[in-house]
Amino acid sequence: MIEQNKLEKIVSLCKRRGFIFPGSEIYGGISGIYDYGPLGVEFKNNVKQAWRQEMFRRQDNIFELDSSILMQRQVWEASGHTSAGFTDPLQECKKCHRRYRADHLTEEGIDKCPNCGGELMEPRKFNLLVETHLGPVKDDSSLTYLRGETTQGIYVNYKNVKTSMSAEIPFGVAQIGKAFRNEITPGHFTYRMREFEQMEQQYFIKPEDAEKYFKYWKNERMRWYLELGIKKEKLQFRPHAKDELAHYAKMAEDIEYEFPFGWHEMEGIHNRGDWDLSRHSKFSGEDFSEIDEKTGERFYPYIIETSAGADRAALAFLVDAYSEDQDNKRVVLKLHPKLSPYKAAVFPLLRNKPDLINNAREVYLKLKKHFNVAWDDRGNIGKRYYAQDEIGTPFCITVDFDTLNDDTVTIRDRDTMKQERVKISGLGEILKEKIGQ
Amino acid sequence: MIEQNKLEKIVSLCKRRGFIFPGSEIYGGISGIYDYGPLGVEFKNNVKQAWRQEMFRRQDNIFELDSSILMQRQVWEASGHTSAGFTDPLQECKKCHRRYRADHLTEEGIDKCPNCGGELMEPRKFNLLVETHLGPVKDDSSLTYLRGETTQGIYVNYKNVKTSMSAEIPFGVAQIGKAFRNEITPGHFTYRMREFEQMEQQYFIKPEDAEKYFKYWKNERMRWYLELGIKKEKLQFRPHAKDELAHYAKMAEDIEYEFPFGWHEMEGIHNRGDWDLSRHSKFSGEDFSEIDEKTGERFYPYIIETSAGADRAALAFLVDAYSEDQDNKRVVLKLHPKLSPYKAAVFPLLRNKPDLINNAREVYLKLKKHFNVAWDDRGNIGKRYYAQDEIGTPFCITVDFDTLNDDTVTIRDRDTMKQERVKISGLGEILKEKIGQ
Repeated sequence: MIEQNKLEKIVSLCKRRGFIFPGSEIYGGISGIYDYGPLGVEFKNNVKQAWRQEMFRRQDNIFELDSSILMQRQVWEASGHTSAGFTDPLQECKKCHRRYRADHLTEEGIDKCPNCGGELMEPRKFNLLVETHLGPVKDDSSLTYLRGETTQGIYVNYKNVKTSMSAEIPFGVAQIGKAFRNEITPGHFTYRMREFEQMEQQYFIKPEDAEKYFKYWKNERMRWYLELGIKKEKLQFRPHAKDELAHYAKMAEDIEYEFPFGWHEMEGIHNRGDWDLSRHSKFSGEDFSEIDEKTGERFYPYIIETSAGADRAALAFLVDAYSEDQDNKRVVLKLHPKLSPYKAAVFPLLRNKPDLINNAREVYLKLKKHFNVAWDDRGNIGKRYYAQDEIGTPFCITVDFDTLNDDTVTIRDRDTMKQERVKISGLGEILKEKIGQ
Repeated sequence: MIEQNKLEKIVSLCKRRGFIFPGSEIYGGISGIYDYGPLGVEFKNNVKQAWRQEMFRRQDNIFELDSSILMQRQVWEASGHTSAGFTDPLQECKKCHRRYRADHLTEEGIDKCPNCGGELMEPRKFNLLVETHLGPVKDDSSLTYLRGETTQGIYVNYKNVKTSMSAEIPFGVAQIGKAFRNEITPGHFTYRMREFEQMEQQYFIKPEDAEKYFKYWKNERMRWYLELGIKKEKLQFRPHAKDELAHYAKMAEDIEYEFPFGWHEMEGIHNRGDWDLSRHSKFSGEDFSEIDEKTGERFYPYIIETSAGADRAALAFLVDAYSEDQDNKRVVLKLHPKLSPYKAAVFPLLRNKPDLINNAREVYLKLKKHFNVAWDDRGNIGKRYYAQDEIGTPFCITVDFDTLNDDTVTIRDRDTMKQERVKISGLGEILKEKIGQ
């Protein structure tokens, strides 16, 4: 299977089976924006839920936050996003005023406007923050931005969280939420979008503990991807060189996945030093420094950040799970059962037998109280199995004529394609155990 | 307790105990924008989860969607939001250019600018959609809006969902997500915000079934609030008069709650007729009409919408749960256990006894695998109980000296304040049953 071809197949599967649709598709789409369909929402919710489980259940001193997308403009001035750090050098066409990434033009050896052939201006910085205005007057005073990263909402609430939860460093604050960037070249499906969802965690520590916790979080985060079934050989760490560090970072290492379009970042682990809390203290006048109990001196907590993309993680799980079973001529999404949109599908063997239908319906409704379960009574059983394989449903349960006599059903395993007969009464427990729920 | 006073107390509790913080507070706040703190996220997630449970588990033919905040501008032209329907008449000051709601000025008999005393222009319509630009050129062609309601994302994906899920009317599509309105007078805490979260469901039906499903959904939605514990006498339906119907509505009825600031809408049930699908068909060229099997004629499905505010529902649950127990001098949030941020709190009787601490810690970590549980070992037990009452924790579990001998603990009930002794081994099951999880 050619890798670029693989991405196209996944994009097509995602649309056809209700995972991901192009945004505003009936109006011609909108570059870098996608909508999650019924199976996609459930799948992505499972990814987010697995992350929350890790942060708030497995760890014991991390607090959740859900801060707003719209914040005061000063937040972005303090963070450094309105100045040099968050900008791409662009070249604008003097004639049609379209803008292009200067580095992309250079790479491809282009020196005239690709659109109209017009002359290009010198490269200049272009801010990635998406602008908007709030309030009754639309002028400079009402200018603000859609957040470019969720984490700034964590910093401005540092004291609110610490005080209300009686937290003491080291502790973490984490949140899931949308962020926006005016990407000039969005692409690779849901990998680089203009509207995307982040899962960010900030761990506030003493400066001398930075190295220890940087290492700790690198390993914790890598373990998470591995435990959810991503193939080991498709994952790697990539440390940033000094000259590619973001303006806020003292040290950075990416967790990369080998996508069909190459090795790319899925998550960044950053030592942000005291940049954020010192800058917001300075710009807001609110003092975020702490006192060292031993020395009595004040310091700004350092921050170890784990910054993951919910959409990127979801895409990696999809790509990694996608497989073509040539022997059986089927496409299988070998998703970890925790991530599968449906945990099971229930089928009556035939659709024209009321006994089978009623019985299967009972099984379906019983399971539905505890799991997300699919129902299918169309076509032959083989086709139904394959339709569930393609969306990653780990187990298919069939009600057949034996069921009517002995209250047993077959469970068929997505990966092994093997079937076993079990009692209906024990079905819930069996599924729970198999799924690890 | 004076009602306005009650709201102030709730606002204060929300900040102090980590439910809700003012947005961008360290930079002076931002009108109509709030952040959810650790307990607030958990609580609001529980509200959303209860809604999802209702839509996707209790009902059997509703599909979830998670569409983007940013859509093509044409979506809002087709929906009617850029023209007359979604605007407030405002009067602008000729001097300082501030704008005011014309109806508010009239109500209060004001005819000069309240800010600078300047002369006011004639009232004119002001659009509530929040504008932004996307793409490399900031001009009219890149203008778009932050969505003013989530539901438009459902309409533009009507065919995507229907086809990918093989859905047949009647069926529903529902989603939870952020929406934005440039409210001129945000207020009443999280009731009227500029950035808020909606829980909207659209039920697509044959036109002749409109009355039946309108009634069905009215009752279903009212039942939901009642089952989650809202007092019956604080809820009412309010039908809209013909002249107050929104531009898309054939019929509308609100579910109102009696907030401390009066009776206000929490959720709207609307018969939107064929407005949405016919308009999007016309504007996009995509045909959303269906064929009537009996008559063979084409028709646009009618839509019965249930449009709830996640923040408004959360606020109503908070207000309704807030009570001052004068006899015991305590504040209690009598939240339904399903909605409480913590399901239980675990205390060691004393903090300077390692045996008690270790034992309590074990109980805490065991429960934490299945429930969101709090830990507290500070101050005396009475104070700890009251601290949990104030945030709505339904059960407090204390490990005392008897525990060390017989493996039992006390469970204290938030509402009755009664305690019972139970075996540690059965704790999980007891909690599950009490919570109804």
